[in-house]
Amino acid sequence: MKIAIAGYGVVGRGTHELLLMNRDKIAARAGEEIEVKYVLDPKPLEGTPAEQLRASGIEEILADPEVKLLVEAIGGVGPAYEYVKAALESGRSVVTPNKQLVAEKGAELLAIAREKNAGFLFEASVAGGTPVLHPISQCLWANDLDLAAGILNGTTNYILTKMVQEGAGFEETLREAQRLGYAEADPTADIEGTDACRKACILADLLFGKHTDPNKVFTQGITRITAADVEAAGLVGCNIKLIGQARRMADGKILCMVTPALLRKEHCMAEVNDVFNAVMVHGNGVGDVMFYGRGAGDLPTASAVLSDVIEIVRGGCRNAGIIGWTDEGDAHLADRRDYDIHALVRIKGMDFAAVEKLFKDCEPIWEKDGETAALVYNVNEGELEKILSGLDAAPYIRMFDC
Amino acid sequence: MKIAIAGYGVVGRGTHELLLMNRDKIAARAGEEIEVKYVLDPKPLEGTPAEQLRASGIEEILADPEVKLLVEAIGGVGPAYEYVKAALESGRSVVTPNKQLVAEKGAELLAIAREKNAGFLFEASVAGGTPVLHPISQCLWANDLDLAAGILNGTTNYILTKMVQEGAGFEETLREAQRLGYAEADPTADIEGTDACRKACILADLLFGKHTDPNKVFTQGITRITAADVEAAGLVGCNIKLIGQARRMADGKILCMVTPALLRKEHCMAEVNDVFNAVMVHGNGVGDVMFYGRGAGDLPTASAVLSDVIEIVRGGCRNAGIIGWTDEGDAHLADRRDYDIHALVRIKGMDFAAVEKLFKDCEPIWEKDGETAALVYNVNEGELEKILSGLDAAPYIRMFDC
Repeated sequence: MKIAIAGYGVVGRGTHELLLMNRDKIAARAGEEIEVKYVLDPKPLEGTPAEQLRASGIEEILADPEVKLLVEAIGGVGPAYEYVKAALESGRSVVTPNKQLVAEKGAELLAIAREKNAGFLFEASVAGGTPVLHPISQCLWANDLDLAAGILNGTTNYILTKMVQEGAGFEETLREAQRLGYAEADPTADIEGTDACRKACILADLLFGKHTDPNKVFTQGITRITAADVEAAGLVGCNIKLIGQARRMADGKILCMVTPALLRKEHCMAEVNDVFNAVMVHGNGVGDVMFYGRGAGDLPTASAVLSDVIEIVRGGCRNAGIIGWTDEGDAHLADRRDYDIHALVRIKGMDFAAVEKLFKDCEPIWEKDGETAALVYNVNEGELEKILSGLDAAPYIRMFDC
Repeated sequence: MKIAIAGYGVVGRGTHELLLMNRDKIAARAGEEIEVKYVLDPKPLEGTPAEQLRASGIEEILADPEVKLLVEAIGGVGPAYEYVKAALESGRSVVTPNKQLVAEKGAELLAIAREKNAGFLFEASVAGGTPVLHPISQCLWANDLDLAAGILNGTTNYILTKMVQEGAGFEETLREAQRLGYAEADPTADIEGTDACRKACILADLLFGKHTDPNKVFTQGITRITAADVEAAGLVGCNIKLIGQARRMADGKILCMVTPALLRKEHCMAEVNDVFNAVMVHGNGVGDVMFYGRGAGDLPTASAVLSDVIEIVRGGCRNAGIIGWTDEGDAHLADRRDYDIHALVRIKGMDFAAVEKLFKDCEPIWEKDGETAALVYNVNEGELEKILSGLDAAPYIRMFDC
């Protein structure tokens, strides 16, 4: 079985290296040897295992009937989208870790794959090496799943972990993370939640079968989280995590969003620290389960990419009848402001007695420096926003309640 | 697709109920409706969904060509073994949560399944509802796996959690667990580690492809863990958990055992509490991953049983070329006494200076009431046993070091 890899950066090269490293095991499980015949990347390949494998362009790959599968590891939409679409239309299978591509174009690409009887799998697009999409779509398939939620971005989890452990502020922790290589020079997609949003959308798509447009998903990053928030959360037994979630509400609508959230320290994801990712899923049979592991890195991501490759090579991959979603617009999406939440609020110029008059059900955390911090229970989020907008209040932080 | 259920206790009935509850979803994923045609159980079935489904015996089930799959939920070896063997020999597939059966007879039953081209799957036998065996054997199949270790028994984890949280002793905590229904009237198989041992053996079998005899596996329960152990562990930042593990050592031998172990509080399994189970796996690509969820209960276990049933009904189940192990005796098994460990020791009638003379590399925890508690590093376990056997020492507790 010959495959091609488009994009020979960290993930593309890692996939090639893990394939070479575990060649015999992988061949035994796939039922045949898997060999990389082409690598497509404009950069020099000298000194890499792909030295002799350069393709002149996607055309060369798609013209070779020996190549049955493309690993797309370019990232983004643009050429990645074009190559993947062309490969699927030619009847070839595709495996990709590209969350932006899957979140934005998944419905269309899955439909092409189905029509052409090709595989299109993307385990590595959510939580990197940690098996998540496969367990959701296969191991838990006897369940009606109503929630997937997780710590989906390693950079922000590293920053929040350090803020908790060291009581430090956001800006200084970000700079330290950049110095150590855990955050990129331009960290926007991580710290603003864009990356987590794409992954939350993929979880929503997979669980509920309808395309969730990342542009329609309420997405808050961690840039406005302060040391005071972390301290107040700690005083009520909580850690702050950036949580992406996809949840079927009682009214049947789907709430998909990315926000910082308070997790009680007993919660199974509260101590998922540093660059680790975790995804919990709730089903009507299994209850809560959680998957934990590395969300990035060359070999962990390669592990997930190759897991999909083997599934396709072996035959009978899950696309048929299991993985697929359709784009039916946004009517299925819930507006978070329509539901009750619990939240941490910090309001300046008010004592707790005054805060208590605003919110019937609340618990004091502190009154200091002219500020009251409190946990507010069972308040409609739209109401909460309205009330706080008229006050000198820090951004509230919801509690994750599952 | 018609199936039969043998054993209509908590798991058998739960499987039937979850199948009825999620009938349409399951049919969509399996590709056809799955219907329970027979239930085999001597007890009254009136008032259950199986009221009209009683089989007169295994013979009636095996004489019916419509029945293609048997769910065995009787437990133990005895008749369960006979029924499963007969079903597989007749070319029918079998799904079971029966860890004793799989740990003791798995190699033989898998060989029959392979010969007859039937499925034999047992996801629910380890960690109940939590997907573990499927992720290990499929999602991580691009890896060379060298370790699986976990909190495999909910009852003992509940007891240890309470001992940590309440500083209570073993006996009183066990009685409380029995009162609350978390421990059985005869808790021997749980508290002595027998149940965890069977699960550790299944993990060893699956990872390393050779039958690991539960009778040859070093198995310690939690009956000798005291409040003093829990306190000493806490002082060095550790919780005590009952850990079952299967590990390939540097010399290529397989170390399989069940023992209480110290886990650093930062470890991903250190805060897996109450009746929850967790299994971590290490692979050369993915690094550490962990699966967390309910290890028992009717519907969680049913979720895992039905996950296997759907896989078999859908076709192309993992047995072929993926799941299987052979019985080649015990030569592959390591003796834990041949390797270095770190351990918590508590020795009466000795001060720390004297303890330090015995063990070069050690760290004091306390000297009190004529006892020294210390962490000992990098000591050969056989040596450690010999040294402590001549002293007035409490049982040492190893540190889990991955």
